[in-house]
Amino acid sequence: MLFAVRMDVDLPRDLDPVVRQETVAREKAYSQDLQRSGEWRHIWRIVGQYSNVSIFDVASNERLHEILWGLPLFPYMTIEVTPLASHPSAI
Amino acid sequence: MLFAVRMDVDLPRDLDPVVRQETVAREKAYSQDLQRSGEWRHIWRIVGQYSNVSIFDVASNERLHEILWGLPLFPYMTIEVTPLASHPSAI
Amino acid sequence: MLFAVRMDVDLPRDLDPVVRQETVAREKAYSQDLQRSGEWRHIWRIVGQYSNVSIFDVASNERLHEILWGLPLFPYMTIEVTPLASHPSAI
Amino acid sequence: MLFAVRMDVDLPRDLDPVVRQETVAREKAYSQDLQRSGEWRHIWRIVGQYSNVSIFDVASNERLHEILWGLPLFPYMTIEVTPLASHPSAI
Amino acid sequence: MLFAVRMDVDLPRDLDPVVRQETVAREKAYSQDLQRSGEWRHIWRIVGQYSNVSIFDVASNERLHEILWGLPLFPYMTIEVTPLASHPSAI
Amino acid sequence: MLFAVRMDVDLPRDLDPVVRQETVAREKAYSQDLQRSGEWRHIWRIVGQYSNVSIFDVASNERLHEILWGLPLFPYMTIEVTPLASHPSAI
Amino acid sequence: MLFAVRMDVDLPRDLDPVVRQETVAREKAYSQDLQRSGEWRHIWRIVGQYSNVSIFDVASNERLHEILWGLPLFPYMTIEVTPLASHPSAI
Amino acid sequence: MLFAVRMDVDLPRDLDPVVRQETVAREKAYSQDLQRSGEWRHIWRIVGQYSNVSIFDVASNERLHEILWGLPLFPYMTIEVTPLASHPSAI
Amino acid sequence: MLFAVRMDVDLPRDLDPVVRQETVAREKAYSQDLQRSGEWRHIWRIVGQYSNVSIFDVASNERLHEILWGLPLFPYMTIEVTPLASHPSAI
Amino acid sequence: MLFAVRMDVDLPRDLDPVVRQETVAREKAYSQDLQRSGEWRHIWRIVGQYSNVSIFDVASNERLHEILWGLPLFPYMTIEVTPLASHPSAI
Repeated sequence: MLFAVRMDVDLPRDLDPVVRQETVAREKAYSQDLQRSGEWRHIWRIVGQYSNVSIFDVASNERLHEILWGLPLFPYMTIEVTPLASHPSAI
Repeated sequence: MLFAVRMDVDLPRDLDPVVRQETVAREKAYSQDLQRSGEWRHIWRIVGQYSNVSIFDVASNERLHEILWGLPLFPYMTIEVTPLASHPSAI
Repeated sequence: MLFAVRMDVDLPRDLDPVVRQETVAREKAYSQDLQRSGEWRHIWRIVGQYSNVSIFDVASNERLHEILWGLPLFPYMTIEVTPLASHPSAI
Repeated sequence: MLFAVRMDVDLPRDLDPVVRQETVAREKAYSQDLQRSGEWRHIWRIVGQYSNVSIFDVASNERLHEILWGLPLFPYMTIEVTPLASHPSAI
Repeated sequence: MLFAVRMDVDLPRDLDPVVRQETVAREKAYSQDLQRSGEWRHIWRIVGQYSNVSIFDVASNERLHEILWGLPLFPYMTIEVTPLASHPSAI
Repeated sequence: MLFAVRMDVDLPRDLDPVVRQETVAREKAYSQDLQRSGEWRHIWRIVGQYSNVSIFDVASNERLHEILWGLPLFPYMTIEVTPLASHPSAI
Repeated sequence: MLFAVRMDVDLPRDLDPVVRQETVAREKAYSQDLQRSGEWRHIWRIVGQYSNVSIFDVASNERLHEILWGLPLFPYMTIEVTPLASHPSAI
Repeated sequence: MLFAVRMDVDLPRDLDPVVRQETVAREKAYSQDLQRSGEWRHIWRIVGQYSNVSIFDVASNERLHEILWGLPLFPYMTIEVTPLASHPSAI
Repeated sequence: MLFAVRMDVDLPRDLDPVVRQETVAREKAYSQDLQRSGEWRHIWRIVGQYSNVSIFDVASNERLHEILWGLPLFPYMTIEVTPLASHPSAI
Repeated sequence: MLFAVRMDVDLPRDLDPVVRQETVAREKAYSQDLQRSGEWRHIWRIVGQYSNVSIFDVASNERLHEILWGLPLFPYMTIEVTPLASHPSAI
C-alpha cells in the first residue's frame, strides 16, 4: 500500500552539535535500512528546502505510523501523509 | 532531472459527454506514451480525489512545461510543480 | 484499516430536481449498504453544514478509493482523507 | 451530544523529562477514565502526527469544555472542535 | 447551550427577483419566530458585508442543526459554528 | 456602537507563576468593571480554547482601542475586531 | 470615526454593457458626493488591481454600513473593513 | 508616489525595558520627522492591534525601502507594502 | 523603478474562439511593444502554469497601473505586484 | 535553465553580532561570486522586507540545490523556488 510523505525538517539552532550530527547519522541509517527492506521506496530532496518527498510501500496505516514515529528526526519534523492508489493510466 | 507534479482535475459539469470521454482517452494515451519513453516515471491516484501525484524525469524546465502544457486535460487542471534533487540518504 | 473522511457537498443550484432527488436517494442506499457490510463504520452530520464526518474500515487504500470514487455524490463533493492508527491511550 | 475533536500536541523540547513522562502518563489515565465512563467514545492516532481524532459524547458544551480544559496536555495542545448531529443516512 | 454562528450570504445574480424577495421575507419571518421563542438570542449585521453574527441558545447540537438547515437562505449561505461555554469572568 | 471581539490568549510557559496569577486576576477585575459599566456587554468562553468571544458597546473606535490596549493580558493576546450594525431582522 | 476599507471589484463578464457603464457611472457619482460631504476622505487605486483603498470618516458603524451597502457596485465587491484610531506618533 | 503600508509590531517579551523604551521613543521621533517632511503622509492605529496603517508619498521605491529599513522597530515588525495610484473617482 | 509582477491567466471556457485568438494576439503585440520600449524588462513563463513572472522598469506607480490596466488579458488575470529596490549584494 | 527564487531572511535576535556580521559578509561574497560566474543572474531587494527576488540560470536542479544549500544564510532563510521557461511573447 503506497503513501506519499513530505517531511520538512527544522533543527533548533541551539541543538548540541554532537547530538545533531549523531541524530542525522541515525536518521540516515534508519532510512537506508527501510529502503533496503523495500518499505521506503523513494526519497528525493526538495530543491532549496531541508525537506524530502518520499514514497512508502507498507502493509498498513499502523506500520506507516510506526515507521514515521520512529524517525530519529521526528521531533523536529512537520510531516504530511497522502494515501495513494494505482492510477488507471499507469502502465 | 526530476520533478514531482500534482495535478487536480476539475471537469466542468456541462462538458459534452462525447468530448469528455474523448479528452480523457487522449489524456491516457498521452500519459502512457510519455511513461513508455521514460519521461513520466510514475503516476499515482490520490485516494478520494480526482488527482494524481506524478514524477517526471526530463532534460529541462522547457521540456517539462511543453509536456504539461500539452496535456489534453490541461485546461481543466490545477498543477503544482516541485523540483527535486537526489537525497543524501538515498541508496 | 481506519480512515477519517470529511465530505462537503455542493449541489449545483440548476441541477434537475428529479436528478437531484434520485442522486441523493442512491447516495443514501450506497452508504447504508457499506454501513451494513461494516466498511463504513460511522457517519455524522456536521452541525450547520451540508457535510459529514465518516470513519471507514477498509482492507486497503485501493478499496477506500474505490468506495469514494463510486459515491453517487462524488462529482459534487470535496473530500478530505486522514489515515488513522490505533492510539496508545485507547482502551 | 456528539463532538469530533482534533488535538495536536507540541511538547516543548526543553520540558523536564520527568515532568514530560509524568504528564503523558496522567493524560493517558485521564483519557481512559473518560473512555470508561462513556464520554470519550473514540480516540485514534493520526498517522505520522503527534495528534489524535476523538469523538466525545457529553451532556453539554460546558461539560466538553471542562473535559478539554482539564487535559494534562492542554497547555501543549492545539484543539479543534466540530459539533456533530445524527446523519439521515446513518443506520 | 450557546453557540456563536456566522452566516455569509451569497445570492446568485440570476436568482428570479420574485423568488429572491420572497426568500428574504421568509428568512426574516423564520428568524423573528426563533428570536421570539428565545432560541435565536442575538443577530447583528457585520459592517460592509452581507453577513451576520448570531448567538443561539438551544437544547442540543441536533436542534441547532435543525434550525440552520431549515433557514430559507441556507442554500446560499456559508455558515461557521462556534460552541460557547460560560466564561469565568462573566458577571 | 457594537463590536464583536475575539481574544485568543497564549501565556508563555516560562511566565513567573506569581505574575501569571496576578495578571489573570487583574484581567478578571478589569473585565468585570467594564461589564458593570455596560461597555463590555457579553463575554463567552470558546469550547476547548483559551479564548473568548465578546461583545462591546462603546462610544467610538478610540474608546474600544483604549479598552483593548489596556487589557492586562493584551501582550499575550491575538485580537480580532468585527464592527457590527443593527440587523434588519432583529426584533 | 475613521475606518480603512478595501474594495475589490469583480464585474461579471456577461453583465449587460449598458448596465455596466451605467452602474460604474452611478458608483462614481455616489463616491464623489460622499467625498464632497467629507465622509469618504480618501480613495486610491491599488496598482494592477480593480480595487481601491479608502478612508472613511463617519459618525458610527451604522452609518458606515449604510454607505457601503448602498454602493452601486456592492453586489460585485468583496469588502474588508478595518477600524482605526489615532496613533500616538501622529503629528 | 503613494504607498499604503501596514506595520505589525511584535516586541519580544524579554527585551530590556530600557532598550524598549528608548527604541519606541526613537521610532516616534523618526516617524514625526518624516511626517513633517511630508513623506509619511498619514499614520493610524489599528483598533485592538499593536499595528498601524500608513500612507507614504515618496520619490521612488528605493526611497521607501530606505525609510522602512531604517525604522528603529524594523527588526520587530512585519511590513506589508501596497503601491497606490490615483483613483478615477477621486475629486 | 523596478517591480516584479506575477500574472495568472484564466480564460473562460466559453470565450468565443475568434475573440480568444484575437485577444491573445493583441496581448502579445502589447507586451512586445513595451519590451522594445524598455519598460517591460523580462517575461518568463512559469512551468506548468498559464502564468508569467515579469520585471517592469517604469517611471512611477501610475505608469505601472496604466500598463497593467491596459493589458488585453487584464479582465482574465489575477495580478500580484511586488515593488523592488536595488540589493546591496548586486554587482 | 531559469528559476525564480524568493528568499526571506530571519536572523535570530540573539545571534552573536560578530557571527552575524561575518555571516552576512560571507553571504555577500558568495552571491557576488555566483553573479560573476553567471549562475545568479539577478538579485533585487523586496521593498520593506529583509527579502530578495533572484533569478538563477543553472545547468540542473541538482546545481540549484547545491547553490541554495550552501548559502551562508541558509539556516535563517525561508526559500521559495519557481521553475521558469521561455515565454512565447518574449522578444
